[in-house]
Amino acid sequence: MEVLPNIPPEEKDRIVGPLELDADLVEDISALIDADERGMVLNILADLHPADVASITTHLSKDEAQKVLEWLPIETAAELLAELEDDFRSELVNSFSQERLTAMIDELDTDDAADILANLPSEVAERILPELEDSDDVKELLSYEEDTAGGLMAAEFIAVGIDFTVADATEEVRLHADKVQDIFVLFVIDENEQLVGTVNMKRLLLSPAKARIKDIMKSEVVSVTTDVDQEEVARIMERYDLVTLPVIDFEGCLVGRITIDDIVDVIREEAEEDIQRMSGVAGGEEHTDSVLQIVRGRLPWLLAGLFGATLAAVVILFFHESLATAAILAGFIPIVMATAGNAGIQSSAIAVQGLASGDIWATDFKKRLAKEVYVAIVNGMAVATFLGIAIIIYGQFSSVENPLQLAYTAALALLFVIILATTVGATIPLLLDKLGIDPALATGPFITTSNDILGILIFFLLANLLYL
Amino acid sequence: MEVLPNIPPEEKDRIVGPLELDADLVEDISALIDADERGMVLNILADLHPADVASITTHLSKDEAQKVLEWLPIETAAELLAELEDDFRSELVNSFSQERLTAMIDELDTDDAADILANLPSEVAERILPELEDSDDVKELLSYEEDTAGGLMAAEFIAVGIDFTVADATEEVRLHADKVQDIFVLFVIDENEQLVGTVNMKRLLLSPAKARIKDIMKSEVVSVTTDVDQEEVARIMERYDLVTLPVIDFEGCLVGRITIDDIVDVIREEAEEDIQRMSGVAGGEEHTDSVLQIVRGRLPWLLAGLFGATLAAVVILFFHESLATAAILAGFIPIVMATAGNAGIQSSAIAVQGLASGDIWATDFKKRLAKEVYVAIVNGMAVATFLGIAIIIYGQFSSVENPLQLAYTAALALLFVIILATTVGATIPLLLDKLGIDPALATGPFITTSNDILGILIFFLLANLLYL
Repeated sequence: MEVLPNIPPEEKDRIVGPLELDADLVEDISALIDADERGMVLNILADLHPADVASITTHLSKDEAQKVLEWLPIETAAELLAELEDDFRSELVNSFSQERLTAMIDELDTDDAADILANLPSEVAERILPELEDSDDVKELLSYEEDTAGGLMAAEFIAVGIDFTVADATEEVRLHADKVQDIFVLFVIDENEQLVGTVNMKRLLLSPAKARIKDIMKSEVVSVTTDVDQEEVARIMERYDLVTLPVIDFEGCLVGRITIDDIVDVIREEAEEDIQRMSGVAGGEEHTDSVLQIVRGRLPWLLAGLFGATLAAVVILFFHESLATAAILAGFIPIVMATAGNAGIQSSAIAVQGLASGDIWATDFKKRLAKEVYVAIVNGMAVATFLGIAIIIYGQFSSVENPLQLAYTAALALLFVIILATTVGATIPLLLDKLGIDPALATGPFITTSNDILGILIFFLLANLLYL
Repeated sequence: MEVLPNIPPEEKDRIVGPLELDADLVEDISALIDADERGMVLNILADLHPADVASITTHLSKDEAQKVLEWLPIETAAELLAELEDDFRSELVNSFSQERLTAMIDELDTDDAADILANLPSEVAERILPELEDSDDVKELLSYEEDTAGGLMAAEFIAVGIDFTVADATEEVRLHADKVQDIFVLFVIDENEQLVGTVNMKRLLLSPAKARIKDIMKSEVVSVTTDVDQEEVARIMERYDLVTLPVIDFEGCLVGRITIDDIVDVIREEAEEDIQRMSGVAGGEEHTDSVLQIVRGRLPWLLAGLFGATLAAVVILFFHESLATAAILAGFIPIVMATAGNAGIQSSAIAVQGLASGDIWATDFKKRLAKEVYVAIVNGMAVATFLGIAIIIYGQFSSVENPLQLAYTAALALLFVIILATTVGATIPLLLDKLGIDPALATGPFITTSNDILGILIFFLLANLLYL
């Protein structure tokens, strides 16, 4: 094999097929680390992808993880550092000397370097920052909000002048080849550093050396400014099937690029956040969180639920005379609550998703609501019929007074409750969205609680009107 | 600009920045279509990305959407077709002649062509399939399950022989340049079509024309076989930050490639499916679904919830004498149900997420459960204290008998209920996962219902023991 100057060595060869991680492997490695079997540990880890090493490391104790980070060669340790969860990483890095930490961070792309520094204690970050090779780039990235295009982007990209030839552009690629790992596209800038086009690698490869970039570039490009929220960035890259998205500042100058792998993480995180919020868990619970961190995220919602349920209890106590007259009415409390809760959660989950994907617009609202009401009427009639029949059958074997009357009272109440709960579930997320509140936040416990209260109220009112 | 043979024209220039879609634009376009203003409609749509045209089309009536598909030039109509939801597309394509439909599908990549054919009525698909240019490739793709690597992959990729030179490989890229839109990497195969390596475009560009592929390729590659589930494919591409993943058959021959944009859609869909399942909506509800389709997805869960709640009602009726003695006990039914439901949903949501991301292993279970129980004890004591204090205060202003006794009875019951509900929520998803059932399926309504029943039972038992 001839040696080619300026071509970076390909990344270390990696395993074929994904690794099956399991607890046995972790236990074996943990035992080897505790026995200080450095050589064997490094041998095992050498064959693994940094992402797999990170998974294993997350399941080790802090001391064991620190040993792994110390034993690994600096580049591998750096890659591992970038793959770890923020909290766990912050715990680990304290034990490293400033020199080793600086050397590790220097191995990383600027976006990963900035993410790590942002999560270090500020006095440590401030000591390391000026020592980095790409100190200025990293400093700039740190100046953007974490959840914006600026916070996501990397400063590693290849920009060529509009007057370059293909040969010039190829030379530019060669110059930066070991800095920029994956090159999907070259960005074209004019003399004022304004982004004016892109050239993809296929086109660069196939064009003659003397062709001018200006003649082969694609001159209109989707780009975002540094302040665009990461959810919006994800939506744009998804919508237009982009692998790289250029980021420009408010003057239109190219300042960075976002790659799809970072966006895949954003999509996953946002989806997890939505599920957690809908389930009444605040603040993004992680498996590595302490008991107190978990309590902090969950307790407020439990207390809010307790408060709402107390209101439902007040409604029930208000009707205590009805209960004294017909004790069987108490049996309908769980039926009304469960059905109201389920119907409300169904319609609100769909509404939250529609809002998140941009499929629902405020002006669609009437059409959307009409459909939900139709669904609620059909579902309500079906569920009410089942309940009515169940009550009539139950009436044959027990001493319930007027089972037929009770059956149609309960069925009618359930029909109303389902219609109302579905409407509330479909409406509240849109209202919250209009008010600028994340609709997922209130969807779970909030809608369930209000539907509980409304449902019980409707049931007892109807029972008083039609049954008692 | 010199004209370069065999270099495909760049894709049509596209808008800078994403389009702000709103209902006004859709209304304007809809009015223009109804007035048969073909020229104006095409003028407006010509500036838009197919993804944006698809969003608009989804909000049009069926007749209007069909006109748009007929008016658009064949390539753009084809791209639009690929972007539409399956159900809506199936409705629309019936009106097209077989020739136009074939011509449209011929414009698409093989994976999109196969997806569209798979969703057409089978007699239509069978007539079109033999007429397609890539008939054999599409036929092969259709033979795989939709949710597997085989169903996701496209037959458009560039494979080069291991004995090729860089010049040969470049020529191969040139030959297939207009078939394969985005080339991130070339796959290297040996004489038996076995996948043996990859060469990325950067390396190809920077290597001398006479260099041998075998000397510059990266020889170990992550790949999947055609039968791997799409969720697993997504996990692998996410984990290893891949943009393209080669797919091999069971003999190790390269048969296709999966690109990250398809996986981004999979991740989004799976997350939406999880949220829907956790909310008691089956079958992937879409905004374009009919009322009956929606009913079909939601009604079974409502009926299951009704059944579960009826069991809770039976428990309450079993204790009707306790209720007759102290009517105030009925007020605790919503409190117990809401708190049990919320605590169970919180812990189950976290468990489902941990399972989905692969962070939880069966062997972690004890450690995980211990943490959940600690959290439940802290939360339970906090919530119980609030409830106890509320009862004592309420007792000052009402005629409740023995308010202090009632306070500690209710508080103790709530503490038990929270611990139990949290435990059930954390355990059931793992059990289901072990049984091969999607844990998200049962998490919402199922766990809530069983916690309701258990909660009410515990409360009334304790009330009988300590209060009555």
